[in-house]
Formats: sequence, C-alpha cells, structure tokens
Amino acid sequence: MRLTPRDTRFFDLLTTAAGNLVTGAGLLTELISVPPAERERIAQLMHDTEHLGDDATQEIMLQLNTSFITPFDRQDIQLLASRLDDVLDDMDEAADLSVLYKIDRFPPGVEKMAELLTRAAELTAEAMPGLRKVTELAPFWQEINAIEDEADGVYRRLLAHLFNGDGGGDPLTIMKTKEVVDRLESAADSFEHVADVVQTIAVKES
Amino acid sequence: MRLTPRDTRFFDLLTTAAGNLVTGAGLLTELISVPPAERERIAQLMHDTEHLGDDATQEIMLQLNTSFITPFDRQDIQLLASRLDDVLDDMDEAADLSVLYKIDRFPPGVEKMAELLTRAAELTAEAMPGLRKVTELAPFWQEINAIEDEADGVYRRLLAHLFNGDGGGDPLTIMKTKEVVDRLESAADSFEHVADVVQTIAVKES
Amino acid sequence: MRLTPRDTRFFDLLTTAAGNLVTGAGLLTELISVPPAERERIAQLMHDTEHLGDDATQEIMLQLNTSFITPFDRQDIQLLASRLDDVLDDMDEAADLSVLYKIDRFPPGVEKMAELLTRAAELTAEAMPGLRKVTELAPFWQEINAIEDEADGVYRRLLAHLFNGDGGGDPLTIMKTKEVVDRLESAADSFEHVADVVQTIAVKES
Repeated sequence: MRLTPRDTRFFDLLTTAAGNLVTGAGLLTELISVPPAERERIAQLMHDTEHLGDDATQEIMLQLNTSFITPFDRQDIQLLASRLDDVLDDMDEAADLSVLYKIDRFPPGVEKMAELLTRAAELTAEAMPGLRKVTELAPFWQEINAIEDEADGVYRRLLAHLFNGDGGGDPLTIMKTKEVVDRLESAADSFEHVADVVQTIAVKES
Repeated sequence: MRLTPRDTRFFDLLTTAAGNLVTGAGLLTELISVPPAERERIAQLMHDTEHLGDDATQEIMLQLNTSFITPFDRQDIQLLASRLDDVLDDMDEAADLSVLYKIDRFPPGVEKMAELLTRAAELTAEAMPGLRKVTELAPFWQEINAIEDEADGVYRRLLAHLFNGDGGGDPLTIMKTKEVVDRLESAADSFEHVADVVQTIAVKES
Repeated sequence: MRLTPRDTRFFDLLTTAAGNLVTGAGLLTELISVPPAERERIAQLMHDTEHLGDDATQEIMLQLNTSFITPFDRQDIQLLASRLDDVLDDMDEAADLSVLYKIDRFPPGVEKMAELLTRAAELTAEAMPGLRKVTELAPFWQEINAIEDEADGVYRRLLAHLFNGDGGGDPLTIMKTKEVVDRLESAADSFEHVADVVQTIAVKES
C-alpha cells in the first residue's frame, strides 16, 4: 500500500486520539494515588484531555467528509474514532464521579485496573501508526482481549471484596465506590471495542 | 435527488417513529410533575406509545424487505429505525420503573433532563423529513451531541446530590431513584446513537 | 444456494457456538436450583463452557481470514460470532457473581428468566443450521424479540418485588442480588442482538 499525504493525515489523527488515551490512563493512575484534596485538580486535567479527544474526533470526521479516497472504509474510520472517544469518556466519568462522590479511599484492585488500562492505552497508541499494515495487527487485538479478560477478573474480585468486606461498610459508600469502579471496567470494555473495529478492518483487508 | 413514492414512504415512516418520541418526552414531563397516584395512568399512555413505536419499526422493516431500491443503504435505514425504537424503550422503562418502585418524589434536575429529552425529540422529528438532504444535517447531530453532553452534566450533579444529600436518605430509596434517572440518561445516550446513524449516512452520501 | 464444503464449515462452527448457549442456559437453570454449596462447581462448568465458546469464536475468525468466499458478508459473520459470544459472557458473569457474592437465595422470577433463556438458546441453536435459508428466519427473530419482551417484564416485576419486598431486606443483599439478575436480563438482551444480526443478513439477502 502506497500512502498518500491524505492517508498519512488519517493515521496521524488516529495516533493523536490514541495518545490522549495514554494521557488519560496516566491521570487515572495519579488520581488514585493522591490525597482526596488533590483529585479535583487532576479531574480538571482529565476534562481538558477529554476536550482534546473531542477535537481529534471532530477533525477525523471533517477529514472524512472532505476526502474522496480513504485508506479504509469511511464508516470503519468513523467507528474507530468514535470508539477511541468512548474510552476517554469512561475515564473522564470515573475521574469526575470520584470527585463528585468525594470518594475517600479506593478499594484494593483499583491500582491494578489503572495499570491494565495504561497498558491497553500504550498498545493502542502503538497500533495506530501500524494500522497501515492492519493484517499484521492480530497480536494487538489478542493482547487487548487478554487485558480486558484480566481487568474483568480483577473487577469481579474487587466487587466481592467491596460487598463482603470485613467491617461491613455503609451501603451508600459501597454504591458510590462501585459507580467509579464500573467506569474503569467500562473503559477496559471500550478498549476491546476499539480492538474489535481494528479486527473488522483487518478482516475486510485480508 | 428525485424522490419516488416509495422513498417518500420511508421518510414518512421514520417521521412517524420520531413523532412518537415527541409524545414520549411529553409524557415523561407530565409524569414527573403529577402526584404519584396519577403516574400509573401516564405510564399506561407511555406503554401505548411504545407499542405504536414497535408498529412503526415493524412497518419500516417490512417496507425494506419489499423494496428493490431504498433511498439509503438498507442496513442504515434498519439501524436508524432500531435506534429510534431504543429511545422509546428507555422512556417506557423510566415511566414503568417509577410506578413499580412507587417513587415518591424526583430529585432536582429531573425536570431539566425531561426538558432536554423533549428538545432532542423535537430536533429528531424535524430532521426525519429533512433526511433526504442528509449532508445538510450536520447542525442536527451537533445539537444532539451538545444536548447529550448537557444531560450528562445534569445527571452527574443529580447523582452527587442524591448520594451526598442532606438528611442522608435511605439507601433503598436512593437506589430506586437512581434506577429511574439512569433510564433518562440512557434515553439521552440513545438520541446520540440516532444522531450517529444519521452522521454515518451523511458520510456515505458525501 | 449451493453450499461449498467451506460454507458448511461456517454453519457448523456457528451451530457449535449456539450449542454452547444451550449448555450455558442449562447450567444456569441448575445453578439456581441447587444449594449454595454446590454452586461453585457449576460456575466452574460454566467457565469451561465459556472457554469452549471463545475457541469457537476464534475458529470462526480464523476461517474468515483464510476464506476467499464466504456465504454472507464477512463482517456479518464476524458480528454474529461476537454476539453469540456476548450471551455466554453474560451467563458466565451471572454464575460467577452469584458465587462471589455468596447469594443465599434467588428471588421469585429467576427460574422464569432461566426458562426464557433456555428457550432462546434452543431457538438460536435451531436457527444456525437453517441460516442458509436466512430469508425464511423471520419467525426466529420475532420469537426471540417476544422472549426478550417477556424477560423484560419478568425482570421489572422481580426488581419491584426485590426492592419493595415485605421484611425490607438489607440493602447490600438487594444490591448483590440485583447485580446477578441484571446479568440474566443482559443475556436476554444479547439474544436479541443475535437476532438483530440475523435480521440484518436477511435484509441484505432479500
């Protein structure tokens, strides 16, 4: 495949969008480790990142509308941009809710989830420039699927601990904590949806 | 684009389906403002509206199966009908659960959410006949996205108020109220999915 | 339509995948009826079934990547495999959470939900070999939609009973029970998504 400057532009924009996910995952990791009073500042940075993500998505859509030829099916590029955006939305919601709900401390397992999201973000950022050789990306979606699977296991054990925890815990605190953790689990799912689109493109190209 | 009578039929059916959403949003607004004892009657009207929605969807599917030529890709028309139906399902669930759970009073912010859903329904109903000029519908999906964004903000503040509210509130009441409000938030999301399909069609046509 | 051996292979693999859903629904039914102490063993069997499901999905993807000609659009076969997999994921989560949360007893209505899921699984398993005559499968997706509708009604009444139940019930137990029941409702939704893909294929073929 010979790349036109226009094709390169698509891969650049997708790479930018995926780069925002690496930033978002880093902010999540920070948010979990800092004292509650500092979380609002980090949630604000996350919100700024989420706006950058919206800008990248809009630019991809604009580029799609003004390009006669695209490196892959238009709808698949649109879907990929939209799926990348979903990940950042989940991360932003997690940060926002942990501030709104004034979560005091996160249950064990949350650091592991942030670590898995960081790994998934890095893999995605590496895959975007490589998307031009999409049929060679099988290891990418397999690894993302393995990460989602691991995140799911961590999530379930975390819930079991949260609900059955010694000391009981008050129901409202448990509900609020679960809401935040649900968004982390949702972010892992959203990475899998990104990988699904990449796989769809590869199936068409093969 | 010159319209055949058959094309007109598709736009008419989609317009009918979107009109049901305006009715549904109106019923939601009413449901929130009336005393609890009157809610069952309104939930029944919502249920009737939801059945009308199912009929419209089925008629679109039937029309798709018997038409050789369709104004847009068959799958996109099918998807659009299905997404319109999802909005009404969310509204119906919200009404139904508020009766089943005997919700006594709704938290502040719910009126605002009903107002945003009404606006989204009106915009969607206006867009359906205009779908024939789909490439000019960018303002439609941009507005729907802005509404979804605003609804999301209202929703999060509402949750924060619900969970952190003065007086504490009993956990079961909070859980039940959240279930109903979740459906309103889901309806706003579903409007965004409608707009996504419209955007997909526009990208293909451009 | 004349079937090549390669086409037959696709239908065989999809039939295997759907057969796993029948096994899964049977395990769910058993899980609900046995004493809590025996549930871990059944959840393990469910987990084994879920792994068989993953294998079937991977084999379909591999087959897609190595076939020049496929009986339907590649993406639709991929989507169908993925949707079948979603059902088993829901069932597996339901089983896993009921063990993790040490659910003591299930609320009335859960048996009915398991029964509806079993019926949906059987219909799906019957439809897969028949997929070669996809345009005759309208009764299949209509029945699945009717089952989803019935499951939804059972689910809502079950929730109302759970939350408004006499004796009150402690909030944490209610939350945990709801989590499990939510997965059963989600499995019914996932069957509808399977039926949606079958309908999409039929619309294209008609």
